[in-house]
Amino acid sequence: MAKIRMGPQTWVFPLPTLLVGANVDGKPNFMAVAWGGIVNSTPPMISVSLRRNRYTNKGIKQNGAFSVNIPSTDLVRETDYCGIVSGSKVNKVEACKFSVFYGKLGNVPLIEQCPVNLECEVVHTIGLDSHELIVGRIEETHVAEACLTDGKPDVTKIKPFIYTTSTQQYYAFGEVIAKAFSIGREIQSE
Amino acid sequence: MAKIRMGPQTWVFPLPTLLVGANVDGKPNFMAVAWGGIVNSTPPMISVSLRRNRYTNKGIKQNGAFSVNIPSTDLVRETDYCGIVSGSKVNKVEACKFSVFYGKLGNVPLIEQCPVNLECEVVHTIGLDSHELIVGRIEETHVAEACLTDGKPDVTKIKPFIYTTSTQQYYAFGEVIAKAFSIGREIQSE
Repeated sequence: MAKIRMGPQTWVFPLPTLLVGANVDGKPNFMAVAWGGIVNSTPPMISVSLRRNRYTNKGIKQNGAFSVNIPSTDLVRETDYCGIVSGSKVNKVEACKFSVFYGKLGNVPLIEQCPVNLECEVVHTIGLDSHELIVGRIEETHVAEACLTDGKPDVTKIKPFIYTTSTQQYYAFGEVIAKAFSIGREIQSE
Repeated sequence: MAKIRMGPQTWVFPLPTLLVGANVDGKPNFMAVAWGGIVNSTPPMISVSLRRNRYTNKGIKQNGAFSVNIPSTDLVRETDYCGIVSGSKVNKVEACKFSVFYGKLGNVPLIEQCPVNLECEVVHTIGLDSHELIVGRIEETHVAEACLTDGKPDVTKIKPFIYTTSTQQYYAFGEVIAKAFSIGREIQSE
């Protein structure tokens, strides 16, 4: 297929839409983050990249901990809002009518309406250029009971969504296309 | 909603399905990676996490560079295969019938059949526990001309896919649900 060179771009598909939370000066705040994902299997670790001057980043530094909340498509309006405004100016929890709860770590705010919540303790902070890469060890995972099938989180019930940088749109998940660590074996046996 | 505590888990939705490439001892090799994503905006940087002993990781260290190739759903079988077998034992390029080309960096193999290819120069390697977190500055982006709409990569044409750790399945992208940096303004104006 004919290809065009388009320079350095942040074009990875899919990117997640995460609500990263921290208590800032003792009060819960959340921001929308697409620069994030799993970085270690054993023990489970996640990274999120935030600009240094972000209000949420201040709270992460104060507590050495943060939360990652996975919103469902029902919360796309609230999630986008958390990516537009700063907690230094508005109370996003009130504006979005989030119910906040605390879990194992005690100082990490979690959004009740998000079907999946991760509590993370900061283990590395790496200064990049525009952003800081923050690696957290996942200490606890909360999942809505209603979003489990056979005891496992089921994305058809969680309804998470995708962010695309090229067109700045949110997408829903589509259909299952294959079983991992399985369909590839067809090639092995050829 | 009633929540259950399920311990530390790698449950982020969505996770990407990337084919990370490097020349190992001068020959192209690719592996499937879900631990990866954008970590810096300016300049664009990406991270991928690989186990230390991965054959591809050897090639990344030899060259200080790697590629990230975004497969389309047409390549789900080949992608899964690249996550099952090791390049130390089989020639995955031959098995998958990949056409390999080289771009700006010259030493980074790219898969012609993948609609998006990123060329990356290693800028940081951070040892975690089971994995190494490798940060690369994106030096060039190649996009299939047929996958552009109004000059921008269009996921409805690229057809990338999603990996889920909880059920080990691949999912297609679904429908657009909202415009980012836009739908949230409804809350601002309330």
